Amino acid sequence: MQLRRGDVLDGAMAILDEFGLADLTMRRLATSLGVQPGALYWHFPNKQTLLGAVVDKILEGLDTPSDTDRWDEAYSELAHRLRAALLAHRDGAELVSATFASRMTSSKVREHFVAAGTDYGLSREHAELAAYALLYYVLGHTVDEQSRAQMEELGALTRAPISPDSPEVIGGESDENLLAGDPTVRFQFGLDLFIDGIRARLASPHSALHTS
Amino acid sequence: MQLRRGDVLDGAMAILDEFGLADLTMRRLATSLGVQPGALYWHFPNKQTLLGAVVDKILEGLDTPSDTDRWDEAYSELAHRLRAALLAHRDGAELVSATFASRMTSSKVREHFVAAGTDYGLSREHAELAAYALLYYVLGHTVDEQSRAQMEELGALTRAPISPDSPEVIGGESDENLLAGDPTVRFQFGLDLFIDGIRARLASPHSALHTS
Repeated sequence: MQLRRGDVLDGAMAILDEFGLADLTMRRLATSLGVQPGALYWHFPNKQTLLGAVVDKILEGLDTPSDTDRWDEAYSELAHRLRAALLAHRDGAELVSATFASRMTSSKVREHFVAAGTDYGLSREHAELAAYALLYYVLGHTVDEQSRAQMEELGALTRAPISPDSPEVIGGESDENLLAGDPTVRFQFGLDLFIDGIRARLASPHSALHTS
Repeated sequence: MQLRRGDVLDGAMAILDEFGLADLTMRRLATSLGVQPGALYWHFPNKQTLLGAVVDKILEGLDTPSDTDRWDEAYSELAHRLRAALLAHRDGAELVSATFASRMTSSKVREHFVAAGTDYGLSREHAELAAYALLYYVLGHTVDEQSRAQMEELGALTRAPISPDSPEVIGGESDENLLAGDPTVRFQFGLDLFIDGIRARLASPHSALHTS
Protein backbone atom coordinates (compact mmCIF):
# COMPACT_ATOMS: atom_id res chain seq x y z
CA MET A 1 0.00 0.00 0.00
CA GLN A 2 1.24 3.45 -0.91
CA LEU A 3 1.98 5.62 2.15
CA ARG A 4 0.58 9.06 1.46
CA ARG A 5 1.82 12.35 2.93
CA GLY A 6 -1.62 12.91 4.48
CA ASP A 7 -1.44 9.54 6.26
CA VAL A 8 1.90 10.45 7.80
CA LEU A 9 0.55 13.80 8.94
CA ASP A 10 -2.62 12.23 10.39
CA GLY A 11 -0.48 9.69 12.23
CA ALA A 12 1.68 12.46 13.67
CA MET A 13 -1.39 14.42 14.85
CA ALA A 14 -2.79 11.28 16.50
CA ILE A 15 0.43 10.67 18.47
CA LEU A 16 0.60 14.33 19.46
CA ASP A 17 -2.98 14.39 20.71
CA GLU A 18 -2.78 11.11 22.57
CA PHE A 19 0.78 11.05 23.95
CA GLY A 20 2.22 14.55 23.57
CA LEU A 21 5.18 16.17 21.86
CA ALA A 22 7.89 14.17 23.66
CA ASP A 23 6.54 10.95 22.12
CA LEU A 24 6.34 12.31 18.60
CA THR A 25 9.46 10.69 17.11
CA MET A 26 10.02 9.44 13.58
CA ARG A 27 10.57 5.91 14.92
CA ARG A 28 7.34 5.86 16.88
CA LEU A 29 5.42 7.38 14.01
CA ALA A 30 6.72 4.70 11.63
CA THR A 31 5.71 1.95 14.07
CA SER A 32 2.21 3.37 14.46
CA LEU A 33 1.84 3.45 10.67
CA GLY A 34 3.27 -0.06 10.26
CA VAL A 35 6.13 1.08 8.01
CA GLN A 36 9.92 1.35 8.21
CA PRO A 37 11.22 4.78 9.35
CA GLY A 38 12.78 5.22 5.91
CA ALA A 39 9.30 5.36 4.35
CA LEU A 40 8.56 8.58 6.24
CA TYR A 41 11.60 10.38 4.89
CA TRP A 42 10.26 10.20 1.37
CA HIS A 43 7.56 12.68 2.50
CA PHE A 44 9.44 14.57 5.22
CA PRO A 45 13.24 14.81 4.89
CA ASN A 46 13.65 15.34 8.65
CA LYS A 47 11.72 15.78 11.87
CA GLN A 48 11.79 19.59 11.65
CA THR A 49 9.96 19.46 8.31
CA LEU A 50 7.37 17.10 9.76
CA LEU A 51 6.84 19.36 12.79
CA GLY A 52 6.47 22.33 10.43
CA ALA A 53 3.69 20.47 8.60
CA VAL A 54 2.00 19.57 11.91
CA VAL A 55 2.11 23.25 12.89
CA ASP A 56 0.58 24.21 9.53
CA LYS A 57 -2.25 21.80 10.27
CA ILE A 58 -2.76 23.18 13.81
CA LEU A 59 -2.89 26.70 12.40
CA GLU A 60 -4.96 26.00 9.27
CA GLY A 61 -8.03 27.70 10.79
CA LEU A 62 -5.97 30.90 11.01
CA ASP A 63 -5.39 31.09 7.27
CA THR A 64 -8.49 33.12 6.58
CA PRO A 65 -8.09 36.79 7.45
CA SER A 66 -10.50 38.43 9.84
CA ASP A 67 -13.55 39.90 8.08
CA THR A 68 -14.38 42.62 10.59
CA ASP A 69 -13.99 46.25 9.55
CA ARG A 70 -12.67 47.36 12.95
CA TRP A 71 -8.93 47.07 13.55
CA ASP A 72 -9.28 46.33 17.28
CA GLU A 73 -11.76 43.54 16.56
CA ALA A 74 -9.44 42.18 13.88
CA TYR A 75 -6.52 41.89 16.33
CA SER A 76 -8.77 40.48 19.02
CA GLU A 77 -10.37 37.90 16.73
CA LEU A 78 -7.01 36.72 15.40
CA ALA A 79 -5.58 36.44 18.91
CA HIS A 80 -8.57 34.44 20.16
CA ARG A 81 -8.49 32.16 17.10
CA LEU A 82 -4.79 31.55 17.61
CA ARG A 83 -5.24 30.74 21.30
CA ALA A 84 -8.10 28.33 20.53
CA ALA A 85 -6.07 26.59 17.80
CA LEU A 86 -3.08 26.14 20.13
CA LEU A 87 -5.20 24.81 22.99
CA ALA A 88 -7.04 22.36 20.71
CA HIS A 89 -4.05 19.98 20.54
CA ARG A 90 -1.97 18.55 23.35
CA ASP A 91 1.31 20.49 23.66
CA GLY A 92 0.07 22.64 20.75
CA ALA A 93 1.36 25.89 22.26
CA GLU A 94 4.80 24.45 23.03
CA LEU A 95 5.09 22.92 19.57
CA VAL A 96 4.09 26.10 17.75
CA SER A 97 6.39 28.22 19.94
CA ALA A 98 9.34 25.99 19.21
CA THR A 99 8.57 25.73 15.50
CA PHE A 100 7.81 29.41 15.08
CA ALA A 101 11.49 30.07 15.84
CA SER A 102 12.60 27.75 13.04
CA ARG A 103 10.21 29.53 10.64
CA MET A 104 9.47 26.08 9.16
CA THR A 105 5.73 26.72 9.15
CA SER A 106 4.10 28.09 6.05
CA SER A 107 1.17 29.42 8.07
CA LYS A 108 0.15 32.96 7.21
CA VAL A 109 -0.79 33.78 10.81
CA ARG A 110 1.95 36.39 11.22
CA GLU A 111 0.96 38.05 7.91
CA HIS A 112 -2.67 38.28 9.05
CA PHE A 113 -1.59 40.03 12.23
CA VAL A 114 0.51 42.43 10.15
CA ALA A 115 -2.45 43.09 7.83
CA ALA A 116 -4.68 43.89 10.81
CA GLY A 117 -2.33 46.81 11.46
CA THR A 118 -1.57 48.05 7.95
CA ASP A 119 -5.23 47.88 6.88
CA TYR A 120 -6.09 50.44 9.52
CA GLY A 121 -3.31 52.97 9.39
CA LEU A 122 -0.23 51.55 11.09
CA SER A 123 2.95 51.86 9.06
CA ARG A 124 4.28 48.57 7.69
CA GLU A 125 7.15 48.78 10.16
CA HIS A 126 4.91 49.32 13.19
CA ALA A 127 2.45 46.70 11.99
CA GLU A 128 5.29 44.13 11.76
CA LEU A 129 6.46 45.00 15.24
CA ALA A 130 2.93 44.95 16.66
CA ALA A 131 2.32 41.56 15.03
CA TYR A 132 5.36 40.10 16.76
CA ALA A 133 4.37 41.60 20.11
CA LEU A 134 0.90 40.13 19.92
CA LEU A 135 2.14 36.74 18.70
CA TYR A 136 4.67 36.56 21.51
CA TYR A 137 2.01 37.45 24.05
CA VAL A 138 -0.41 34.80 22.77
CA LEU A 139 2.34 32.14 22.62
CA GLY A 140 3.68 32.97 26.10
CA HIS A 141 0.17 32.94 27.52
CA THR A 142 -0.98 29.70 25.97
CA VAL A 143 2.26 27.81 26.72
CA ASP A 144 1.72 28.53 30.42
CA GLU A 145 -2.04 28.02 30.28
CA GLN A 146 -1.74 24.67 28.51
CA SER A 147 1.12 23.40 30.71
CA ARG A 148 -0.91 24.28 33.78
CA ALA A 149 -4.04 22.59 32.44
CA GLN A 150 -2.11 19.45 31.54
CA MET A 151 -0.46 19.38 34.98
CA GLU A 152 -3.85 19.78 36.63
CA GLU A 153 -5.11 16.85 34.61
CA LEU A 154 -2.24 14.66 35.77
CA GLY A 155 -2.49 15.94 39.35
CA ALA A 156 -6.22 15.25 39.41
CA LEU A 157 -5.44 11.56 39.19
CA THR A 158 -3.56 11.47 42.49
CA ARG A 159 -4.91 14.46 44.39
CA ALA A 160 -7.15 14.05 47.44
CA PRO A 161 -10.69 15.40 47.04
CA ILE A 162 -10.90 19.14 47.65
CA SER A 163 -13.78 20.82 49.41
CA PRO A 164 -16.14 22.48 46.93
CA ASP A 165 -16.14 25.48 49.30
CA SER A 166 -12.56 26.38 48.39
CA PRO A 167 -12.55 26.58 44.59
CA GLU A 168 -9.44 28.78 44.55
CA VAL A 169 -7.33 25.85 45.77
CA ILE A 170 -8.22 23.81 42.70
CA GLY A 171 -6.31 26.21 40.49
CA GLY A 172 -3.30 25.92 42.79
CA GLU A 173 -3.31 29.68 43.08
CA SER A 174 -4.70 30.29 46.52
CA ASP A 175 -2.38 33.31 46.82
CA GLU A 176 -4.21 35.01 43.99
CA ASN A 177 -7.67 36.35 43.54
CA LEU A 178 -10.05 34.24 41.51
CA LEU A 179 -10.24 36.60 38.57
CA ALA A 180 -6.48 36.51 37.86
CA GLY A 181 -6.73 32.72 38.18
CA ASP A 182 -9.17 32.41 35.27
CA PRO A 183 -7.08 31.97 32.11
CA THR A 184 -9.73 33.48 29.83
CA VAL A 185 -10.02 36.65 31.93
CA ARG A 186 -6.23 36.81 32.11
CA PHE A 187 -5.87 36.38 28.35
CA GLN A 188 -8.45 39.05 27.57
CA PHE A 189 -6.92 41.57 29.97
CA GLY A 190 -3.45 41.33 28.39
CA LEU A 191 -4.96 41.43 24.91
CA ASP A 192 -6.84 44.62 25.82
CA LEU A 193 -3.60 46.19 27.10
CA PHE A 194 -1.86 45.55 23.76
CA ILE A 195 -4.82 46.81 21.78
CA ASP A 196 -4.99 49.95 23.94
CA GLY A 197 -1.27 50.39 23.30
CA ILE A 198 -1.83 50.15 19.55
CA ARG A 199 -4.72 52.59 19.87
CA ALA A 200 -2.33 55.11 21.44
CA ARG A 201 0.07 54.50 18.54
CA LEU A 202 -2.68 55.04 15.97
CA ALA A 203 -3.73 58.25 17.72
CA SER A 204 -0.20 59.61 17.19
CA PRO A 205 1.01 57.78 14.07
CA HIS A 206 4.09 59.95 13.71
CA SER A 207 5.39 59.26 17.20
CA ALA A 208 9.00 58.19 16.96
CA LEU A 209 10.15 54.71 17.92
CA HIS A 210 12.00 54.93 21.23
CA THR A 211 14.99 53.32 19.64
CA SER A 212 15.24 55.51 16.54
CA MET B 1 33.63 14.16 50.43
CA GLN B 2 30.25 15.61 51.33
CA LEU B 3 28.19 16.60 48.27
CA ARG B 4 26.65 19.99 48.99
CA ARG B 5 23.43 21.37 47.54
CA GLY B 6 25.37 24.27 46.02
CA ASP B 7 27.69 21.83 44.20
CA VAL B 8 24.72 20.04 42.66
CA LEU B 9 23.22 23.34 41.54
CA ASP B 10 26.53 24.58 40.09
CA GLY B 11 26.89 21.27 38.24
CA ALA B 12 23.38 21.65 36.82
CA MET B 13 24.06 25.22 35.67
CA ALA B 14 27.29 24.08 34.00
CA ILE B 15 25.50 21.34 32.02
CA LEU B 16 22.72 23.76 31.05
CA ASP B 17 25.16 26.40 29.80
CA GLU B 18 27.38 23.99 27.92
CA PHE B 19 24.96 21.39 26.53
CA GLY B 20 21.43 22.77 26.95
CA LEU B 21 18.23 21.73 28.67
CA ALA B 22 17.78 18.39 26.85
CA ASP B 23 21.07 17.15 28.36
CA LEU B 24 20.24 18.20 31.90
CA THR B 25 19.28 14.81 33.36
CA MET B 26 19.83 13.52 36.89
CA ARG B 27 22.00 10.71 35.52
CA ARG B 28 24.25 13.00 33.54
CA LEU B 29 24.50 15.44 36.44
CA ALA B 30 25.56 12.62 38.79
CA THR B 31 28.22 11.47 36.32
CA SER B 32 29.60 14.98 35.94
CA LEU B 33 29.84 15.28 39.75
CA GLY B 34 31.38 11.81 40.11
CA VAL B 35 28.60 10.52 42.38
CA GLN B 36 25.80 7.97 42.17
CA PRO B 37 22.40 9.39 41.06
CA GLY B 38 21.05 8.54 44.53
CA ALA B 39 23.35 11.16 46.08
CA LEU B 40 21.49 13.93 44.21
CA TYR B 41 18.10 12.95 45.56
CA TRP B 42 19.19 13.77 49.09
CA HIS B 43 19.26 17.44 47.98
CA PHE B 44 16.57 17.39 45.29
CA PRO B 45 13.79 14.81 45.61
CA ASN B 46 13.09 14.92 41.86
CA LYS B 47 14.08 16.64 38.65
CA GLN B 48 11.28 19.20 38.90
CA THR B 49 12.65 20.44 42.23
CA LEU B 50 16.13 20.69 40.76
CA LEU B 51 14.84 22.65 37.76
CA GLY B 52 12.95 24.95 40.14
CA ALA B 53 16.23 25.68 41.95
CA VAL B 54 18.01 26.30 38.64
CA VAL B 55 15.28 28.76 37.70
CA ASP B 56 15.65 30.51 41.06
CA LYS B 57 19.35 30.89 40.30
CA ILE B 58 18.69 32.24 36.79
CA LEU B 59 16.23 34.76 38.24
CA GLU B 60 18.17 35.75 41.35
CA GLY B 61 19.06 39.15 39.87
CA LEU B 62 15.32 39.86 39.67
CA ASP B 63 14.80 39.55 43.39
CA THR B 64 15.47 43.19 44.10
CA PRO B 65 12.52 45.44 43.26
CA SER B 66 12.99 48.34 40.88
CA ASP B 67 14.06 51.53 42.68
CA THR B 68 12.66 54.02 40.18
CA ASP B 69 9.76 56.24 41.24
CA ARG B 70 8.07 56.10 37.83
CA TRP B 71 5.70 53.20 37.18
CA ASP B 72 6.47 52.99 33.46
CA GLU B 73 10.21 52.84 34.18
CA ALA B 74 9.56 50.19 36.84
CA TYR B 75 7.76 47.90 34.36
CA SER B 76 10.35 48.58 31.68
CA GLU B 77 13.32 47.96 33.98
CA LEU B 78 11.86 44.70 35.30
CA ALA B 79 11.05 43.48 31.78
CA HIS B 80 14.56 44.26 30.52
CA ARG B 81 16.16 42.61 33.56
CA LEU B 82 14.03 39.51 33.03
CA ARG B 83 14.92 39.31 29.35
CA ALA B 84 18.64 39.69 30.11
CA ALA B 85 18.49 37.02 32.83
CA LEU B 86 16.75 34.56 30.48
CA LEU B 87 19.16 35.19 27.61
CA ALA B 88 22.21 34.81 29.89
CA HIS B 89 21.86 31.00 30.04
CA ARG B 90 21.45 28.54 27.19
CA ASP B 91 17.77 27.50 26.90
CA GLY B 92 17.08 29.88 29.82
CA ALA B 93 13.84 31.20 28.35
CA GLU B 94 12.51 27.72 27.55
CA LEU B 95 13.43 26.43 31.02
CA VAL B 96 11.82 29.33 32.85
CA SER B 97 8.69 29.15 30.65
CA ALA B 98 8.27 25.46 31.40
CA THR B 99 9.00 25.82 35.10
CA PHE B 100 6.85 28.90 35.55
CA ALA B 101 3.83 26.72 34.77
CA SER B 102 4.76 24.28 37.56
CA ARG B 103 5.13 27.23 39.98
CA MET B 104 8.15 25.36 41.42
CA THR B 105 10.27 28.49 41.45
CA SER B 106 10.41 30.59 44.61
CA SER B 107 11.48 33.65 42.58
CA LYS B 108 9.64 36.82 43.47
CA VAL B 109 9.67 38.08 39.88
CA ARG B 110 5.88 37.91 39.50
CA GLU B 111 5.38 39.77 42.77
CA HIS B 112 7.73 42.56 41.65
CA PHE B 113 5.73 42.97 38.45
CA VAL B 114 2.56 43.14 40.54
CA ALA B 115 4.11 45.73 42.87
CA ALA B 116 5.08 47.89 39.88
CA GLY B 117 1.34 48.24 39.27
CA THR B 118 -0.07 48.52 42.80
CA ASP B 119 2.60 51.04 43.86
CA TYR B 120 1.32 53.46 41.24
CA GLY B 121 -2.42 53.20 41.40
CA LEU B 122 -3.56 50.01 39.67
CA SER B 123 -5.97 47.91 41.70
CA ARG B 124 -4.52 44.67 43.05
CA GLU B 125 -6.67 42.75 40.58
CA HIS B 126 -5.52 44.74 37.55
CA ALA B 127 -1.92 44.70 38.75
CA GLU B 128 -2.04 40.87 38.97
CA LEU B 129 -3.49 40.63 35.49
CA ALA B 130 -1.02 43.16 34.09
CA ALA B 131 1.88 41.25 35.70
CA TYR B 132 0.83 38.05 33.95
CA ALA B 133 0.42 39.82 30.62
CA LEU B 134 3.92 41.32 30.81
CA LEU B 135 5.50 38.07 31.99
CA TYR B 136 3.86 36.15 29.15
CA TYR B 137 5.03 38.71 26.63
CA VAL B 138 8.63 38.62 27.91
CA LEU B 139 8.65 34.81 28.02
CA GLY B 140 7.10 34.45 24.56
CA HIS B 141 9.55 36.96 23.12
CA THR B 142 12.70 35.53 24.67
CA VAL B 143 11.81 31.90 23.89
CA ASP B 144 11.64 32.82 20.20
CA GLU B 145 14.62 35.18 20.34
CA GLN B 146 16.84 32.64 22.08
CA SER B 147 15.77 29.72 19.87
CA ARG B 148 16.53 31.80 16.82
CA ALA B 149 19.92 32.89 18.16
CA GLN B 150 20.86 29.30 19.01
CA MET B 151 19.75 28.08 15.57
CA GLU B 152 21.80 30.81 13.93
CA GLU B 153 24.80 29.68 15.93
CA LEU B 154 24.39 26.08 14.78
CA GLY B 155 23.66 27.15 11.22
CA ALA B 156 26.75 29.33 11.19
CA LEU B 157 28.89 26.22 11.47
CA THR B 158 27.70 24.78 8.16
CA ARG B 159 26.53 27.82 6.24
CA ALA B 160 28.41 29.19 3.27
CA PRO B 161 29.88 32.68 3.77
CA ILE B 162 27.33 35.42 3.20
CA SER B 163 28.11 38.66 1.49
CA PRO B 164 28.53 41.49 4.02
CA ASP B 165 26.42 43.60 1.65
CA SER B 166 23.27 41.63 2.46
CA PRO B 167 23.00 41.69 6.25
CA GLU B 168 19.26 41.00 6.18
CA VAL B 169 19.89 37.48 4.94
CA ILE B 170 21.94 36.66 8.04
CA GLY B 171 18.87 37.03 10.19
CA GLY B 172 16.97 34.70 7.87
CA GLU B 173 14.28 37.32 7.58
CA SER B 174 14.82 38.78 4.16
CA ASP B 175 11.04 39.21 3.85
CA GLU B 176 11.04 41.68 6.69
CA ASN B 177 12.47 45.10 7.15
CA LEU B 178 15.64 45.33 9.19
CA LEU B 179 14.05 47.09 12.16
CA ALA B 180 11.52 44.31 12.85
CA GLY B 181 14.41 41.86 12.47
CA ASP B 182 16.34 43.37 15.39
CA PRO B 183 15.23 41.55 18.54
CA THR B 184 15.99 44.48 20.84
CA VAL B 185 13.90 46.90 18.76
CA ARG B 186 11.17 44.28 18.59
CA PHE B 187 11.23 43.71 22.34
CA GLN B 188 11.11 47.43 23.13
CA PHE B 189 8.21 48.06 20.76
CA GLY B 190 6.00 45.40 22.35
CA LEU B 191 7.00 46.58 25.81
CA ASP B 192 5.99 50.14 24.87
CA LEU B 193 2.62 48.91 23.57
CA PHE B 194 2.02 47.15 26.85
CA ILE B 195 3.05 50.20 28.92
CA ASP B 196 0.85 52.47 26.78
CA GLY B 197 -2.01 50.07 27.47
CA ILE B 198 -1.42 50.34 31.22
CA ARG B 199 -1.25 54.11 30.85
CA ALA B 200 -4.71 54.07 29.29
CA ARG B 201 -5.92 51.88 32.17
CA LEU B 202 -4.45 54.27 34.78
CA ALA B 203 -6.08 57.23 33.03
CA SER B 204 -9.48 55.56 33.53
CA PRO B 205 -8.95 53.44 36.67
CA HIS B 206 -12.62 52.69 37.05
CA SER B 207 -13.06 51.26 33.59
CA ALA B 208 -14.76 47.89 33.85
CA LEU B 209 -13.05 44.69 32.84
CA HIS B 210 -14.43 43.60 29.49
CA THR B 211 -15.37 40.28 30.98
CA SER B 212 -17.19 41.49 34.06
